[in-house]
Amino acid sequence: MLLRVFKNSLESVVVMLRSQKEKAIEFRKMHQSGDILVLPNAWDVPSARIFEQAGFPAIGTSSAAIAISLGYPDGQKITRDEMLQVVERIAKSVSVPVTADMEAGYGESATTVADTAKRVIAAGAIGLNIEDSTKRPDHPLFDVEAQVRKIAEIRKIGDRSDVPLVINARTDVLILGQADKSSRLREAIDRGNAYNNAGADCFFPVGAIDSQTISEITRQVPCPINILATNGVPSVPELKRLGVRRVSVGSGPARATFGLVRKIAHELRESGTYVNLLNGAPTLAEANSLVRPS
Amino acid sequence: MLLRVFKNSLESVVVMLRSQKEKAIEFRKMHQSGDILVLPNAWDVPSARIFEQAGFPAIGTSSAAIAISLGYPDGQKITRDEMLQVVERIAKSVSVPVTADMEAGYGESATTVADTAKRVIAAGAIGLNIEDSTKRPDHPLFDVEAQVRKIAEIRKIGDRSDVPLVINARTDVLILGQADKSSRLREAIDRGNAYNNAGADCFFPVGAIDSQTISEITRQVPCPINILATNGVPSVPELKRLGVRRVSVGSGPARATFGLVRKIAHELRESGTYVNLLNGAPTLAEANSLVRPS
Repeated sequence: MLLRVFKNSLESVVVMLRSQKEKAIEFRKMHQSGDILVLPNAWDVPSARIFEQAGFPAIGTSSAAIAISLGYPDGQKITRDEMLQVVERIAKSVSVPVTADMEAGYGESATTVADTAKRVIAAGAIGLNIEDSTKRPDHPLFDVEAQVRKIAEIRKIGDRSDVPLVINARTDVLILGQADKSSRLREAIDRGNAYNNAGADCFFPVGAIDSQTISEITRQVPCPINILATNGVPSVPELKRLGVRRVSVGSGPARATFGLVRKIAHELRESGTYVNLLNGAPTLAEANSLVRPS
Repeated sequence: MLLRVFKNSLESVVVMLRSQKEKAIEFRKMHQSGDILVLPNAWDVPSARIFEQAGFPAIGTSSAAIAISLGYPDGQKITRDEMLQVVERIAKSVSVPVTADMEAGYGESATTVADTAKRVIAAGAIGLNIEDSTKRPDHPLFDVEAQVRKIAEIRKIGDRSDVPLVINARTDVLILGQADKSSRLREAIDRGNAYNNAGADCFFPVGAIDSQTISEITRQVPCPINILATNGVPSVPELKRLGVRRVSVGSGPARATFGLVRKIAHELRESGTYVNLLNGAPTLAEANSLVRPS
């Protein structure tokens, strides 16, 4: 009896791991098809479920949106545990692959960052974002070598575990670099190549906005490129033409909801009416159906 | 030295309690002025902060919105601990009084419900909603006597503690009652009187939509009446004319944001454009400034 229980648990663990492994493999393939992967970023269960129901084949998290929703400003002020708790909740709530935005890895050493990668797998995610900003204004970017060591360690974690983690290496050099625009672009391209050589599957140059910058990067960095859709960025079909393989939206959807809450608040205070409150809102029954019974 | 540390901690605890006590007193007074109290319902830190910045003098929580945001359907499926954790996070993030929606009190006995009330105070809130629905379809409402015992126990907790809890007694008889409409209204009024006699500060008849029902209740229940602003409910100025003292919005704002996320998702999938994503969204810097550094 006890043996059978043990065998059953073991089997379900194996099934769970295989399924997570399969998700990682599927997710990597989504970058390699001829199409462009549009990856919406969730910050809680309902946002993740809405994205899944809308038909997205995979979901990212937004570290900024998760941090802010829990009361922390963006920039690794939230603890790794709290961030991973939300990642786990989101990964459990959907059946599509989930990739976790883990900021700069919640530690400076390659060992700590590797541990973060292990914990991302344990939380049920199949990929992660790792960025090269230090969160220190006096020295805003990690040196390429230090960042490369971290990416290589994460690659090892993915290779040794049963889940072949998809690594999205983000550079903040375009927004935080000290040099002029063309030198920053040169450095971003160099970092993209270095990160890819270290084992990154995808390169994420935040701050690449205009078509020329974007196509320069897609031509000169051989791995799939992730562009952040924000003000001034070309539409998804145009990004596809520029050779972009993955588009994400960061904290955009969460911030859009903050804008709506502000509108609702002002209308309630000023005219005491409910237009913004009621317009387009699902019923409570529909909202309940977004989340599965526990 | 140790004594001084002890004295200082004691003083800061006293200051904290006094301030919470003052908030409870202020919040009770908001029901007794000639004006109507509009109480928006938050479910996370940014929604609470946006409501505070918009000038609302107090904030409620929405148990449905909190539960759904954590992946539970509405109806006391979430644990009391998880609900209180969010209440505490919200109460800590704003300086206005916060009242907590505690569903049916997370237990059936008066003792358990009283314990819930103690924990609401410990979480930093100064009032609570307590409803009479059982969450059991075969017997949807608690008997008046049982509900009255719970309200009386909560009243004792408020009176014995330093924080004079503001009790909002909710009845679901208008939406869950078995009888015809006029008998349900009669029963709602009877329950309102019984709950008020047991120590409730405010009565909350969910499902009171039309002006006639609302004014019948405000005329026949002597304590302040809370109306839920939803489809078909008169605007705030009209509710004021009907004698209503408090308006809340429940899970409405959260559900409105779900509607917006759905729109953003469909636009991204279909045209690959960012109109709904960018329109009216605060910048990341503005979103960061919503939350205080920890």
